[in-house]
Amino acid sequence: MSVLIKGGRIITAADDYVGDIFIEGETVSLIGRSLDVRAEKVIDASGRYVIPGCIDPHTHMEMPFGGTVSCDDFTSGTISAAFGGTTTIVDFCLQQAGQTLPEALETWHEKIERAKPVIDVGFHLAVTDLQEKGTLEDLAKAPEEGVTSYKLFMAYKGAIMVDDETLFKVMQVASETGALVMVHAEHGDSIDVLVKQALAEGKTEPKWHAATRPPITEGEATNRAVQLAHLAGAPLYVVHVSCKEAIDPIARAREADWRAWGETCTQYLFIDESYLDRPGFEGAKYVYTPPPRPKENQEHLWHALSTGVLSVISTDHCPFRFDGQKTLGKDDFSKIPNGGPGVEDRLMMIHNFGVREGRISLNRMVELLSTAPARFFGLYPRKGTIAVGSDADLVVFDPNRKKTISAETHHSNIDYNLYEGTEVTGVPETVLLRGQVLVENGELVAIPGAGRFVRRARFGEE
Amino acid sequence: MSVLIKGGRIITAADDYVGDIFIEGETVSLIGRSLDVRAEKVIDASGRYVIPGCIDPHTHMEMPFGGTVSCDDFTSGTISAAFGGTTTIVDFCLQQAGQTLPEALETWHEKIERAKPVIDVGFHLAVTDLQEKGTLEDLAKAPEEGVTSYKLFMAYKGAIMVDDETLFKVMQVASETGALVMVHAEHGDSIDVLVKQALAEGKTEPKWHAATRPPITEGEATNRAVQLAHLAGAPLYVVHVSCKEAIDPIARAREADWRAWGETCTQYLFIDESYLDRPGFEGAKYVYTPPPRPKENQEHLWHALSTGVLSVISTDHCPFRFDGQKTLGKDDFSKIPNGGPGVEDRLMMIHNFGVREGRISLNRMVELLSTAPARFFGLYPRKGTIAVGSDADLVVFDPNRKKTISAETHHSNIDYNLYEGTEVTGVPETVLLRGQVLVENGELVAIPGAGRFVRRARFGEE
Amino acid sequence: MSVLIKGGRIITAADDYVGDIFIEGETVSLIGRSLDVRAEKVIDASGRYVIPGCIDPHTHMEMPFGGTVSCDDFTSGTISAAFGGTTTIVDFCLQQAGQTLPEALETWHEKIERAKPVIDVGFHLAVTDLQEKGTLEDLAKAPEEGVTSYKLFMAYKGAIMVDDETLFKVMQVASETGALVMVHAEHGDSIDVLVKQALAEGKTEPKWHAATRPPITEGEATNRAVQLAHLAGAPLYVVHVSCKEAIDPIARAREADWRAWGETCTQYLFIDESYLDRPGFEGAKYVYTPPPRPKENQEHLWHALSTGVLSVISTDHCPFRFDGQKTLGKDDFSKIPNGGPGVEDRLMMIHNFGVREGRISLNRMVELLSTAPARFFGLYPRKGTIAVGSDADLVVFDPNRKKTISAETHHSNIDYNLYEGTEVTGVPETVLLRGQVLVENGELVAIPGAGRFVRRARFGEE
Amino acid sequence: MSVLIKGGRIITAADDYVGDIFIEGETVSLIGRSLDVRAEKVIDASGRYVIPGCIDPHTHMEMPFGGTVSCDDFTSGTISAAFGGTTTIVDFCLQQAGQTLPEALETWHEKIERAKPVIDVGFHLAVTDLQEKGTLEDLAKAPEEGVTSYKLFMAYKGAIMVDDETLFKVMQVASETGALVMVHAEHGDSIDVLVKQALAEGKTEPKWHAATRPPITEGEATNRAVQLAHLAGAPLYVVHVSCKEAIDPIARAREADWRAWGETCTQYLFIDESYLDRPGFEGAKYVYTPPPRPKENQEHLWHALSTGVLSVISTDHCPFRFDGQKTLGKDDFSKIPNGGPGVEDRLMMIHNFGVREGRISLNRMVELLSTAPARFFGLYPRKGTIAVGSDADLVVFDPNRKKTISAETHHSNIDYNLYEGTEVTGVPETVLLRGQVLVENGELVAIPGAGRFVRRARFGEE
Ligand SMILES: [Zn+2]
Ligand SMILES: [Zn+2]
Ligand SMILES: [Zn+2]
Ligand SMILES: [Zn+2]
Ligand SMILES: [Zn+2]
Ligand SMILES: [Zn+2]
Ligand SMILES: [Zn+2]
Ligand SMILES: [Zn+2]
Repeated sequence: MSVLIKGGRIITAADDYVGDIFIEGETVSLIGRSLDVRAEKVIDASGRYVIPGCIDPHTHMEMPFGGTVSCDDFTSGTISAAFGGTTTIVDFCLQQAGQTLPEALETWHEKIERAKPVIDVGFHLAVTDLQEKGTLEDLAKAPEEGVTSYKLFMAYKGAIMVDDETLFKVMQVASETGALVMVHAEHGDSIDVLVKQALAEGKTEPKWHAATRPPITEGEATNRAVQLAHLAGAPLYVVHVSCKEAIDPIARAREADWRAWGETCTQYLFIDESYLDRPGFEGAKYVYTPPPRPKENQEHLWHALSTGVLSVISTDHCPFRFDGQKTLGKDDFSKIPNGGPGVEDRLMMIHNFGVREGRISLNRMVELLSTAPARFFGLYPRKGTIAVGSDADLVVFDPNRKKTISAETHHSNIDYNLYEGTEVTGVPETVLLRGQVLVENGELVAIPGAGRFVRRARFGEE
Repeated sequence: MSVLIKGGRIITAADDYVGDIFIEGETVSLIGRSLDVRAEKVIDASGRYVIPGCIDPHTHMEMPFGGTVSCDDFTSGTISAAFGGTTTIVDFCLQQAGQTLPEALETWHEKIERAKPVIDVGFHLAVTDLQEKGTLEDLAKAPEEGVTSYKLFMAYKGAIMVDDETLFKVMQVASETGALVMVHAEHGDSIDVLVKQALAEGKTEPKWHAATRPPITEGEATNRAVQLAHLAGAPLYVVHVSCKEAIDPIARAREADWRAWGETCTQYLFIDESYLDRPGFEGAKYVYTPPPRPKENQEHLWHALSTGVLSVISTDHCPFRFDGQKTLGKDDFSKIPNGGPGVEDRLMMIHNFGVREGRISLNRMVELLSTAPARFFGLYPRKGTIAVGSDADLVVFDPNRKKTISAETHHSNIDYNLYEGTEVTGVPETVLLRGQVLVENGELVAIPGAGRFVRRARFGEE
Repeated sequence: MSVLIKGGRIITAADDYVGDIFIEGETVSLIGRSLDVRAEKVIDASGRYVIPGCIDPHTHMEMPFGGTVSCDDFTSGTISAAFGGTTTIVDFCLQQAGQTLPEALETWHEKIERAKPVIDVGFHLAVTDLQEKGTLEDLAKAPEEGVTSYKLFMAYKGAIMVDDETLFKVMQVASETGALVMVHAEHGDSIDVLVKQALAEGKTEPKWHAATRPPITEGEATNRAVQLAHLAGAPLYVVHVSCKEAIDPIARAREADWRAWGETCTQYLFIDESYLDRPGFEGAKYVYTPPPRPKENQEHLWHALSTGVLSVISTDHCPFRFDGQKTLGKDDFSKIPNGGPGVEDRLMMIHNFGVREGRISLNRMVELLSTAPARFFGLYPRKGTIAVGSDADLVVFDPNRKKTISAETHHSNIDYNLYEGTEVTGVPETVLLRGQVLVENGELVAIPGAGRFVRRARFGEE
Repeated sequence: MSVLIKGGRIITAADDYVGDIFIEGETVSLIGRSLDVRAEKVIDASGRYVIPGCIDPHTHMEMPFGGTVSCDDFTSGTISAAFGGTTTIVDFCLQQAGQTLPEALETWHEKIERAKPVIDVGFHLAVTDLQEKGTLEDLAKAPEEGVTSYKLFMAYKGAIMVDDETLFKVMQVASETGALVMVHAEHGDSIDVLVKQALAEGKTEPKWHAATRPPITEGEATNRAVQLAHLAGAPLYVVHVSCKEAIDPIARAREADWRAWGETCTQYLFIDESYLDRPGFEGAKYVYTPPPRPKENQEHLWHALSTGVLSVISTDHCPFRFDGQKTLGKDDFSKIPNGGPGVEDRLMMIHNFGVREGRISLNRMVELLSTAPARFFGLYPRKGTIAVGSDADLVVFDPNRKKTISAETHHSNIDYNLYEGTEVTGVPETVLLRGQVLVENGELVAIPGAGRFVRRARFGEE
C-alpha cells in the first residue's frame, strides 16, 4: 500500500515547511517539495498541518480500581484516541494483589488480545508488591520484553502504594536495566490520615477529595522521588504534575541537569478545584488524582511547559462513568473511583488554548504531544517525528475547522466529557497509523487490530 | 547570696558594653556602669567578656544505643558542660520499646535523681512508638510537664525510626499543644538498603558509615519534614544539619517565612569525612550520625550560620568510649555505637574559629549558643540573655587565655576528644548558674544537685 | 540631672523584661529590677514599653529641590520627629551646584546653627559633582568630620544624578575611608526618556510620575549599585526600596553575604499607586520618589522586613506643602516637588500595623527603627539600645492609647499627612534625649538646641 | 545543477535518520530513504553525518579597531569559515565616527563587493552614535534593507561605547521595528577607571587586560541590558557570554520567560585566564573581550548550554596577527587590538569536546551552531535545517576522521590559532552552499562570489 499526502504544512518539533510525503508500506519513504510519484491513495493536505501522530504515554484502559473497572477497553479507548490524533498509547499494566510481574504483563497482553486496539500500544509495568509475589529478578527482565518503564504509586495507602524501600530498590534495578522510573507522587501517609479525619468529621462531598490531598503532599513526594532516583542513579519521570509545589522540585532538577523530568495532563491546564464544588454530585466527575488545583496553578503549568521545566502533556485517561461508577461514592468521596477521561481531547485543547492563544509554538506542541513522549519511552525515531524511515503515523490537522467538544460526539464509552461544550478551532481530520488510514472524514475506517503491541527501547536508546 | 561581677564587657545577642552586674539570689537584679553595692562575692571581670550561660539543646546523657549506653551520666556530663560554659542542657528522653510516654519521662527523671546534674536540665520527648504503647493523648500531656518539644527519628530503621504516619500525627498534635517538633532527618529506608548491601559486599570499615548515608538522604528527609510540618501547622526544628543538601530546604523555608529552622553541631564545622579513613580503627571515633561530610560543606555551614539560614549550634554530645564501646563495631561498621562527645568544647571552638577568625560576630556567637536555643526551647527570657530579672547564668570568658583541647584535660568520661590537640585562644574562666559559682579558677566548686530540671514554656511562649 | 524610669517593659532588639532605668547626666547608669535610688525626676512607666529612641537615617530638612525648599527646617522637623519617638536623624547634606564638598557641609552646619534642632542630628554627604568642584581628596576627609556615609543619586538626570564613573570612584574612596555608600537607585537615563515622551504626549497628571518610573528602573539600578559596590569593595546601603524588583537583588546580596543592605520607608508599606490617581490634584501629595507602587509590593516589603532581606525602615521625610509647593506642578507632573512627610508617624504606624497585626515582633520593630540604623550609621552602642553607658535616648510608649493621625495635630510645617485619618493604638508618651525630657504629656518641654550634631563612627566601627 | 547526497546520517535539531537528499538548484527538493533520481553530482555520505550548514552570527571581517584592521577580509574570512563547515555569517557593520547609519551599511556592502565572500553574509548594524550622525529614523529603516538586528557596545568608553540613553532609545526603536537588539555587555565606566589605574601603576602586561575587566563588570551590564530591553519591549541577544556572573541574569530571564537570550563563543569553553600569563608576549594572542575567565566558568558555560540557558555558540572571529598587530600593545595592554580568530574551528571543537565527550547531543550541537542562529537572525527556515524547500546549505561531516588544529593548516590570514595542536576526531568533509560545492576533499572548489548578501527577516518572522 502506498499513500501520498500532498501539499501539507509539515510540522515537527523543529521544522515547519510545505511539502509532499510519500508512504510506502508502514513508513515514510520520501519527502519532497512536489513529488511526482504514483500512489494508491492520495490525500490533499493543502491548507492543513501534517504532524506526527500524537503519543499518549499515560492511559488506563480496562483498569481495575476500587471494585470497578475503567469503562474503556483497548478497542473503545484506542478508537477514541485515534479520533483525537493519537496513534500510540503507553498504558499502565498494573500488578494486582497476588500476581507475579510476568503474570501482570500476561494479563495486559490478554486485554489487547481480547479487545484489540486500533492504534499502537505499549505497556509500563506498575509494581505494587515486591514482598510477596514481585521479585527484583522479574523486574529486571521486563525490558527484554519491550516494557522499559516501571511505575510506582507513592499514594493509595493500603491498596497499591509502595513504601520507600520498594521505591528505592526498583530505582536501583532501573539504574541497571536502563528502564525509566515513573512515579505517581503524593505523600500517601499524610493523605491517608487526612482522609480518615475528614470522614470521621462527616466530610463526605467530592470537594473533600481535594482538601485531603493538598498540593504540598504532591510537592513533597515529587521531591522525594527526585532525590531517591538521583541517589539510585535512575532516570525519573514524574506523572501528572498538577501544581507549583510539584513543579518546583522538577525545576531544581532540570537546573541541576539531573535525569528527572515531569509531565502534566490536559485537565490540569483547564479544570480547577472549584469544579469539585459543582452542585448535586456533579463534582464527582472531576475526582481524579491529583485533584483539580487552585486556578493559579494553571499559569504555573503553562509557564513550566513553555520554559522546558515540564516535558510532556499526557491525558491520564482513566474513565469511569458518572452513572453507576462515580456514584459509588455518593456518600463517601473516598469511594468515588479516581480518574477522568480525555484521551480524545488533548490535541484539540492544546492546539486551541496553547498554540492559538500564544502560549506555545506549533513546534513545541508537537514536541510535547509526540516527539518528547517518543523519546522518553523508547519509541523515537520510529515514532514521534516525520522523517524518512519513520513510521507513517501522521495526523492531517485542519487548523481552521471548528468543533464543540461533547460527550455526545466523543468516542469513549464514558458518559461525560471534562470539557463539555468547549468550542475549539482546529481538529484532526485524517489520521494514519503506519500508513493505514484510521480516521477519515470523521469516520473510523480501520478495524480493531490495526494497532499492535510496541516493544520499546530502553531509556536513551533507540 | 549576692554576687557582683565587676567591669566586664557584657555581651548579649544584641548588646556589647562595659558594666557591673549584681546578682541577688538566683537572678540578675542590677546592671550599672559602676555599681556601688555590697556583695558577698565579687568577681573581677575586667578584660573579660561576660556572656549569658550557653545552652546546649542537644545532648544524650546515659543514652542506650545498640546494646550499650553513652558513657556520661547527668553528673559527669553536666560537669563537662559546665567547664565549657554551658549552664543548661536539653537532653533527649527516649521512649524505649515497651514503654509508654509517661514511663519514658519517668525513666529520665530517675536518671537525674540518681546522677544529679550540676547545671539545669530540660527534656525533649523522643517518640519511637505510637502503635503499641505510645498514645496521642499522652503526647498531648507532655507540655503540661514542661516538656515542650517532641523528637522523631526518620532513620535507624528497625530500631527507633518512625514511619511518616507517626511523624505526621505527632506534628498534628504539636500544632495543637504548642510543642516544637524536632527531627533527626535521614531517609531511613534507603540507608537501610545501602547498609545491608555494603555489608553483603564485605564493606565493614568505619568509612562505610558515611558512604551508606550520603548527604542526599539527609537532604531528602529534611525537605520531607519541612513540608509535613508545614502541612500539619507545626513548628519544626531540624537537628544536626550537616551538609548543603539539608541546608537548602531549610533556606527555602526561611525565605518563605515558614516555621522551620535548623541547627548544626560543632563537629560538622571541623571534622570531615576523611577522618573516617584514619588508620587502624581510629575512624570509629568519628562515627556519629549524620556522618562527617565532604569538607566543602563546612563553608556552606558557616555561611548558613552567618546568613541566618541556620539558627543554633549544639553538640549532639553522645559519648561512647573508644575502648570497649566503639570497638563493638570492629568487624562491622553498623555495630559501632553512633555518637561523639563535645559538650565541653563548643564555646571555645566557636569563639576561636568563628569569632576570632572573622566568620561571625561576638553577638552572633551569643545568639547561636545561648539566646536562640533559649527562645526555641521555651527558656527565654529566663535564660539566654543578661537582663535584670533573668537567671544569673553567666560565663566570665577570658578572650586571651590559650588552651589546648585534649581528652587528658576534659571532664567527660569519654577517652578521646574530637578536637584533640587543637589550640584555642579564649576560655571560660568562671561559670555561674542561677547565681551559684560552678567553676572558678579551673576548679569545680559546685556539687551535683546544683542544677535542676527546668520546665520549659511552649514554643513562642515565655 | 538624674531621671528614674520605673517599672516599664524594657524592649531592645534582643530583650524584653520589666525593670527600672536610672539615668545620670546623659547616659543610662543603672538598670535594675527595682531600683532604690534618689532621682530628680521619676517617670512611672508601668504598663508602658520603654524602647530606645528611634533613629531616622533618611530625612531632608530645609532641602532645596526644583526651585523650592522642603518646608521643615531643623527646628520644626526635629520637633515633629521628637513627637514621633525619634531622637536622632541623619539628614542628607547636599552638595549644590558650584559647591565644594566642605562648603556643602558648611552649609548644612549653618542650617542647624540657624534653626537649632531638639534632637540629635548627623549628616550624610550627598555628592553630586566630582568634575568641577568636588574632589576625591575632600571626599576622603569627610569621615574625619564625623560624616561617614556618602550618598549618590542614580536618577534626576540633568540635576543631581551622577554617572557611573563618579559612582564607582566614590565607592572606591569609601572602601578606603570606611564610609558607607548610600544610593538612590533608579535608572535615570530611561526615566528621563520616558518623562520627556510622556510630556510630549500631553500626559501631565500626577499619575504619570509613577508611570514614567516603573519598578524595573529601580530594580536595575539597585542591582547595578550592588555589583559596583562589591567590585569596589565598599559597603552599600540602598535607600527607599519600594518594590519586589529592587528587593530581589538585595536578597541575592544577603544570600551571598555581600556587604549590601537596604531600607524601605513607612509610606511604601501603606500607600500604593492608586493614590496618585485621586481626584483633583490630590495625587500630588503622593508624588515622591520612588513613586507609590502596585499594592502587591506591600506584602513583598513586609516579607523582606521579616526575613531580614531589608534591614531598616526610615521615612525619607522631605515635606512640601500642598498649597504653593506641590501646586508648582499643576500642569506638569515633572515640576511637582518630589517628596512627602512622615518623620512623626513611623513608630505609630509600624507598631500598629507591623507589631499589632502580627507581621513583626516588638524586638524586630526596635531593631528596624533604632538598633539597625544605629549600627549602620556609626551610632551604636552610644545609641540604638538600652544599656548602661548608652545615651539615655528613650521612648516611653503607651501600647494601649489610641490616636488618629492627622495634619491637624502633627507638628511638621506641612499642610497634609500621608496617613490622614488613620487610627492607631500605641503612641509615644514621653521622649528623652540624652536624659533630657523632650516631650511629656503631649507637650514639647525641650527647647531648640537640646539636640546637637553627632559625629558618627565609620562603618563597622564604634 | 542537481546534487544527490546518498546514504548519510541526516541530523537536524530534532531528527536523526539515514537517507538520501536530492538538491535541485539552490534548495533541497527531495528526501528519501533511497532515492532513485538522476543527479549531475552524487556525493556518497555513507558513514557520514549530514548536517545543515553552520551559521556564525558573530564575526568581524576587515574590522577597524584601535588604528588597525582585522586581518581577514570577506574573502579570506569566508573561505576559512567554509572549511570549518560554516555557510553563513552575520557580520557586524560598524558605524564609524562621522558616519550616518546608511553610510555605515554602504561601507559594509562595499567590503563584500571588493572582497567577495564564498559563503552567504548578513549584517548586523552596530550603532555607536545617535547624537551627531545617527538618527532614530535611519535606524528604523535598516530592517527594510534586510538588516534586522542592532548591536550596541556597553564598553570601550571613549570609542564605540554608547550611554544608556542611546541604548534605551535603540531598544525602543527595536520594539517597534521588530529588530533584535544585541549587546556587548560590560560595564564600561568602571573598566575605564580600572584600566587607567592599572596603567598608572605600571601594570602593562597582557594579564592586566583580564584583571581590569573582572566578571562582575560583565554580569552587571548583562543584567542592565536584560532589564532595559524588557522595559522597552525589545527582544535581546547578549553576545559572548563568558562567565557565571553573566549567565545568572540570563538564566533569570529564561526562567521568567522574558525575551532575552545569550550566546557564548568557542574560546570561552576552552581558554582560561591563565593563557594571558603565558611567557613572552604570548598572552597577547588571548587578548579578546570579554577576556578569558577563571577556568571554573567553562563548566558553568557547558551547563548553561545543556540546560537551555544559553542558546547559541558563535566565534566572535576578529583576527589580528600576532606580528605587527598584537605587538602594538607590547608596552601597554590597552593598546593590544582586542580579538581572536576561530571561525574555522568551531564545529570541530564543539563536536569533539561537546558531543564526543558527552556534554551535548548531536541534535543539540546542530541547534546551537545552525538552527538557533537561523531562528534568532531571521534566516529560518530558509537556513538552519534540512528540509525540503530549504537552502541546500549542507555539511557532510566525517565523525571519525582525525585532525590536528593548527595555524599552519587553517585558512584565515591570521598567524596563530587559539587551539594550536589540539587533536580532534570529526571534520567537515564536503560543504555545500545553496547546492554549490564549496569545499571537497580538503580543497576549495568554489570561487569568491559564491556567497552573497542575505536579507534577513525581522525577529520572530520568517
Ligand atoms: Zn496517578
Ligand atoms: Zn494515571
Ligand atoms: Zn540524631
Ligand atoms: Zn542526637
Ligand atoms: Zn531618593
Ligand atoms: Zn531621600
Ligand atoms: Zn564584543
Ligand atoms: Zn564581537
